[in-house]
Amino acid sequence: MRANGVERRTIEWNGEVVSVLDQTALPFVVTTLDISTSHEMVTAIRDMVVRGAPLIGAAVAYGIALAAAHNPDDDALLNAAAQLVAARPTAVNARWAAEQMTAAWQGVPRAERARRLREHAQAIADHDVACNRRLGSYGADALVQLTAGTAGGAGTPSQPGPASTRPNPDRPLSVLTHCNAGWLATVDWGTALAPVFELHRRGVAVHVWVDETRPRRQGLLTAWELSNEGIAHTLIADTAAASVIASGHVDAVIVGTDRTTANGDVVNKVGTYGVALAAADNNVPFLVVAPTSSVDLDLATGNDVDIEQRSRGELDRVRGRDDAGRVVDVSTLDEYTQVANPAFDVTPARLVTAIVTEHGVVTPGQLAAFVREHDSLWCMDTTSGTRLDHQVASTRTDQVRGARDRG
Amino acid sequence: MRANGVERRTIEWNGEVVSVLDQTALPFVVTTLDISTSHEMVTAIRDMVVRGAPLIGAAVAYGIALAAAHNPDDDALLNAAAQLVAARPTAVNARWAAEQMTAAWQGVPRAERARRLREHAQAIADHDVACNRRLGSYGADALVQLTAGTAGGAGTPSQPGPASTRPNPDRPLSVLTHCNAGWLATVDWGTALAPVFELHRRGVAVHVWVDETRPRRQGLLTAWELSNEGIAHTLIADTAAASVIASGHVDAVIVGTDRTTANGDVVNKVGTYGVALAAADNNVPFLVVAPTSSVDLDLATGNDVDIEQRSRGELDRVRGRDDAGRVVDVSTLDEYTQVANPAFDVTPARLVTAIVTEHGVVTPGQLAAFVREHDSLWCMDTTSGTRLDHQVASTRTDQVRGARDRG
Repeated sequence: MRANGVERRTIEWNGEVVSVLDQTALPFVVTTLDISTSHEMVTAIRDMVVRGAPLIGAAVAYGIALAAAHNPDDDALLNAAAQLVAARPTAVNARWAAEQMTAAWQGVPRAERARRLREHAQAIADHDVACNRRLGSYGADALVQLTAGTAGGAGTPSQPGPASTRPNPDRPLSVLTHCNAGWLATVDWGTALAPVFELHRRGVAVHVWVDETRPRRQGLLTAWELSNEGIAHTLIADTAAASVIASGHVDAVIVGTDRTTANGDVVNKVGTYGVALAAADNNVPFLVVAPTSSVDLDLATGNDVDIEQRSRGELDRVRGRDDAGRVVDVSTLDEYTQVANPAFDVTPARLVTAIVTEHGVVTPGQLAAFVREHDSLWCMDTTSGTRLDHQVASTRTDQVRGARDRG
Repeated sequence: MRANGVERRTIEWNGEVVSVLDQTALPFVVTTLDISTSHEMVTAIRDMVVRGAPLIGAAVAYGIALAAAHNPDDDALLNAAAQLVAARPTAVNARWAAEQMTAAWQGVPRAERARRLREHAQAIADHDVACNRRLGSYGADALVQLTAGTAGGAGTPSQPGPASTRPNPDRPLSVLTHCNAGWLATVDWGTALAPVFELHRRGVAVHVWVDETRPRRQGLLTAWELSNEGIAHTLIADTAAASVIASGHVDAVIVGTDRTTANGDVVNKVGTYGVALAAADNNVPFLVVAPTSSVDLDLATGNDVDIEQRSRGELDRVRGRDDAGRVVDVSTLDEYTQVANPAFDVTPARLVTAIVTEHGVVTPGQLAAFVREHDSLWCMDTTSGTRLDHQVASTRTDQVRGARDRG
């Protein structure tokens, strides 16, 4: 996707260094960082220069490849992998990527390791992009079908294909999204926004209502992504989402998920449940884009999920530009004000119209069986030109298991 | 109520001048302004030093009294009244107060007008406080009854009286509120917060979940009011309201209203509808505190109400303190980001458990008949020591009609 007009990924090779978008500065300042050592990558992960589970996985892989370019000895690589994983210890994708990379140098002569690991990091990144493009394709089809009033979109796992014609071509297909499940959280394309990008590239007119998503205001990142792609969008306060939906100007809601339980309950950014209630109250389809790695079959329902409470600072501190144009953080709360700041909420499956996975679109009730059926599938065509191969595919079960362990 | 430990009203006589709380500075700075001429009052109204419909009405009355102290001639008084009303031309209460004051000097000798109008302004302020105290008393009773699981709270207009015993005295009665319908928008006591203040003064342990209420963040004013009264409260992002309600930690939701239509649909600060959906989805009582002057019987349903769209600046600009402790406004949005900013939304009557008026508590379905029945009633006991008398009471019908004209 584009950042200030330049097509790029959140992370990519730039000659001998790894170029990453600095997400601590977005959306106020667009800047990239060239990372040349695994130690610098540890810092970038720890300081959230890169963020989002799939992107962190790729960053760990690139970090190990950078380590191999300096010293391909077993000890050096294992040490680099351990440090990279420790930079964000709860990120399951980081551990998964480290395991992938470790497997990839086994039995490979020292002299070939740097090249092999560089290619393997690239393959891991390409795999994320391939998964997201499939989410985008299935999701785009589902959006078109659901908003055309046909019942086929939900319930029947569909195949990727060309979009149906829009029911009313005079008006853009208008979706509402919450938080940022765009390309910034992944290597490229994102999850919940992938169908939006896909529709836009198919030539379908799209408009996105963007929830601000207090307290962290990830809606600003979503708005930034959409601006860069030239996709029409309107930012609204979270308080306005329900009435905008009730106004008839939203054809569908589409959100990502951190975890989806076996019964189809959706754990996602706090505020998602409220949006789902408004969608249900107005018969607007509510779609969840969920890579199967985010489906946790070990949890029966959302009631089994502990909701993380985050810091007061997220509600208190707000970033902006002062009248001199400087980027500053301000404190907005009285020091005596108590706050509660749950990070996630649970949207009951009964409010979810359809779940979009990289293998097709299902209803919440179909999800568990569908994920079990597709557990051994893999996003990328293994005959593609990349080095992503059987070795990676064979560890997919571990990946899924790892994702289920997420806290 | 208290501001930094000092019991006061938002507006009150202070010797020969009128002291007002400067609401443009709250909650960051607590400061009062002494106003000595009607011209200064015009400025205070126009610059929103005083805000909130009932408070603006009182401010106009005090402004005319200040004018009379300088020059009690008919022309001078009429001129002052016209300028005060023009300071906020859409404020119905301003016009009503000007009419009250104009009627009050008719036939009164010049030499007595200053005293008479000073007392009359005081009576108008006292009347607002009396109305709000009745809202507080009825609302407190309703909260106790509804949260005790008895059916008597809603449906049957109740009489003010002592609270029932709390069902679970180990845990505070916990309510959630949206926006600021506290004493700052009135002369004292407020509307939706009046029952909370009343319960606190009755010795009932209360806890308030305070929605931040983006974009203008009026929740910070609510939190400030509650801090000053020593009432336990927790500020949350608007996105967290639904999950906090679902968590079982909210006994009731209580909000104010800008306008309630004949069928009981509630027009209130944007975000109210979403909170009502969450309350309904979790069987939590949803109470609306609505002075009968805010009930608009000329509108059949909420669909008949035009929702005001407000400025982009409200979403963009955020006030806080920088690291040097200075109060600054920052811009938080990319200049190219389009926004929509509806000021209000409509909560359908089906989501409203009970409506608290100054004459009793009713269901939405009972509202229209109840308001017609009580149209001639008046909040204050006319035998009280104040000068509020038949002359004021007789214009109540105009007041109601005026309120119905509100845009």
